[in-house]
Amino acid sequence: MAHKEFRPFDELVTYEVALSVLFDCIKPIDRFEIVSIDKAVDRVLFEDACAKIDMPPFTRSAMDGYALISADTIGVSPENPKKFKVIGRLNAGEAATDILVSNNTCVEVATGAELPSGADAVVRIEDTSQINDEEVLIFVQVKPMTNVSLRGYDKHRGDLLFSSGEVLNAGKIGVLAASGYDKVKVYERPKVAILPTGDEIIEPGRELTRGSIYDSNSYILLALVAKAGCQPIRFPPVKDSFQALCSLINKVSTEDYDIIVMTAGGSVGKRDFAADVLSKLGELKFRGMRTRPGMPTLFAMVNGKPVVSMPGHPVSCYVVANVLLFPVLRRLSGVLKYEPICKRGILKKDVESPKDFHAFIAVSLHGKEVTPVFRYSDMISTIGVANGYVEVPIGIEKIEAGLEVEVKLFEF
Amino acid sequence: MAHKEFRPFDELVTYEVALSVLFDCIKPIDRFEIVSIDKAVDRVLFEDACAKIDMPPFTRSAMDGYALISADTIGVSPENPKKFKVIGRLNAGEAATDILVSNNTCVEVATGAELPSGADAVVRIEDTSQINDEEVLIFVQVKPMTNVSLRGYDKHRGDLLFSSGEVLNAGKIGVLAASGYDKVKVYERPKVAILPTGDEIIEPGRELTRGSIYDSNSYILLALVAKAGCQPIRFPPVKDSFQALCSLINKVSTEDYDIIVMTAGGSVGKRDFAADVLSKLGELKFRGMRTRPGMPTLFAMVNGKPVVSMPGHPVSCYVVANVLLFPVLRRLSGVLKYEPICKRGILKKDVESPKDFHAFIAVSLHGKEVTPVFRYSDMISTIGVANGYVEVPIGIEKIEAGLEVEVKLFEF
Repeated sequence: MAHKEFRPFDELVTYEVALSVLFDCIKPIDRFEIVSIDKAVDRVLFEDACAKIDMPPFTRSAMDGYALISADTIGVSPENPKKFKVIGRLNAGEAATDILVSNNTCVEVATGAELPSGADAVVRIEDTSQINDEEVLIFVQVKPMTNVSLRGYDKHRGDLLFSSGEVLNAGKIGVLAASGYDKVKVYERPKVAILPTGDEIIEPGRELTRGSIYDSNSYILLALVAKAGCQPIRFPPVKDSFQALCSLINKVSTEDYDIIVMTAGGSVGKRDFAADVLSKLGELKFRGMRTRPGMPTLFAMVNGKPVVSMPGHPVSCYVVANVLLFPVLRRLSGVLKYEPICKRGILKKDVESPKDFHAFIAVSLHGKEVTPVFRYSDMISTIGVANGYVEVPIGIEKIEAGLEVEVKLFEF
Repeated sequence: MAHKEFRPFDELVTYEVALSVLFDCIKPIDRFEIVSIDKAVDRVLFEDACAKIDMPPFTRSAMDGYALISADTIGVSPENPKKFKVIGRLNAGEAATDILVSNNTCVEVATGAELPSGADAVVRIEDTSQINDEEVLIFVQVKPMTNVSLRGYDKHRGDLLFSSGEVLNAGKIGVLAASGYDKVKVYERPKVAILPTGDEIIEPGRELTRGSIYDSNSYILLALVAKAGCQPIRFPPVKDSFQALCSLINKVSTEDYDIIVMTAGGSVGKRDFAADVLSKLGELKFRGMRTRPGMPTLFAMVNGKPVVSMPGHPVSCYVVANVLLFPVLRRLSGVLKYEPICKRGILKKDVESPKDFHAFIAVSLHGKEVTPVFRYSDMISTIGVANGYVEVPIGIEKIEAGLEVEVKLFEF
């Protein structure tokens, strides 16, 4: 019953095997660049970052108040206040030189001001009353180190702040700036060649000819590659031609791209040439995944470069780009540990999946409600509505409505 | 007991009131730009986007197989196959002109190929066997519309795809491209003036002088403003001087920024001039929030422009930037409905909060474990470790370890 030009998948790999094959072949790139700290958000640290100074860099007051010797406040209370001589004032940013706190004297200090010599505690301004410019009443007893931040108590110079492979968010950038970093060594953004393929695709903005559709896969990939911290470079669409694909992929794989992504051509039809092209040019590592969607996903190494051929249906392309390509691109970018954002919710409708396939069910998650939105793989509007997916592993045929399920968010 | 230069907050607003005052004063900007669809990721739609064409644009085959008249397959099965005459072949991208399927004939079709006239169903190639170039055996009975995608069954031309205020992710961009959009009208990115203030701050990369610290707040804000989809513009640091602040804010508020953010100066110390400056120049809408951290947060309107003064402690600045500024910036950017990403987990340690304050407890969430990492507001390393926060509303003093809590992720 074999069909002469139908070339079925012989051996589908599981999702786990596909990921592990990709991770065996794809390592973080080894190029870095130095970026200014004000441009470093979302970049990946290329090497460990250690504190350049003690943090805080000097012992300082954590409050507006009066720096004094804590032992002088023993027995002091609102009912039994004590008068202190004010011998000076220190603002934030001023050096506490030529000033020494001795018994029953104090120095007025602003939050962040250096703690003057002799003092070991600060009484908050709220717990004092000024008598005149030279005297203040103190109403509370304080212990040593009250309202004082010791030099280096947060981090000492040389302490590890962040490891290579960590992603710099606003919080981490704040820590680096506080430690004196004005620039930082980060991974370059990997270059991703996106090759739209297919006789039927037309560039958006141009007139549709009969039987043609607008290219959407390469625009999905452009956006997702950028979100994964890489630089996408989109090529002009290529027709389904063995020769044209061979020469294009051969050429692109010898240029300075870190990974090549084809938008279609991995299926079983007469004009699906990806498998033939990739086998001819390099080593086909897997052809077909035991997943729904995602079966016609291929991976090969050509001229030392990874080449992924995505499923041609836009919904399938989008799902596989999230579940397979995104983790790979994060790894390529140097990210030490990529994990999608997972949430939990209650499934509103039964979902079914073929027993021998690992399914990724597109869902719309709002609050705790998880609504499957996948209908047919060529209903592209699905991916404008779904914000995550539920996995149904091999061996499970159905998840019933009402059960709590884990949802992994798309695009994170 | 009053202190002559201590100006305590008279009336702290609750977090909810602060947000609602900000939302009353701050509306989405009214400027748009046209961007190419390949640059549109993370941008906010300025106007509703409707389908430019029917999707799919023509009735097509959803599979590789044979297009035929479904009624001709009645009674057909693997045991009782039926021979069909193959009268043509249609690839994806080809127009199905000059071809008509009549009884007991069929046309070989590729996935995505136009359904030829006369046919009303497609038999998958897997359910057929080719006899020769002109004949094929069909092994299954199919119903009308099997493996057929009707023109416009996903969306009709003119149907609403996305509303003004929706954020364009990769999925939505794919839908727009498929519908023929090569460019799209999006909100401009609001311009955010960031004014670092403080006598004690030094630019990272320069030598620290005694008593000084490196500026980190403005770098935290730069990164977070960018993540919120706005354009941050950082000004050189300004000293704590009433006059200097007055003239700077007066000037900046008449330039083309959409919001002004000061990094400090809103507290109760002698050299905290933000409240005085903002009252003099415009209308102080609130001075101080009943939150921990975040008390010294101020908001004013000056020359018609919103001005927010952030708490000076970097940890407080970071938390308030997330809980207050981020939603405001999303609104300014045109986002219809901003919601942080919430997850649930089990609290590993008790957290306490003053009864009269709404607390935001920085936590590190890993898997289901929620570990509070907040120690002191001047331990800036906290914000390099925490990835979310737990809220403890006014009236609650303690949440005990072991309870399930909601964690809102920072920076989303």
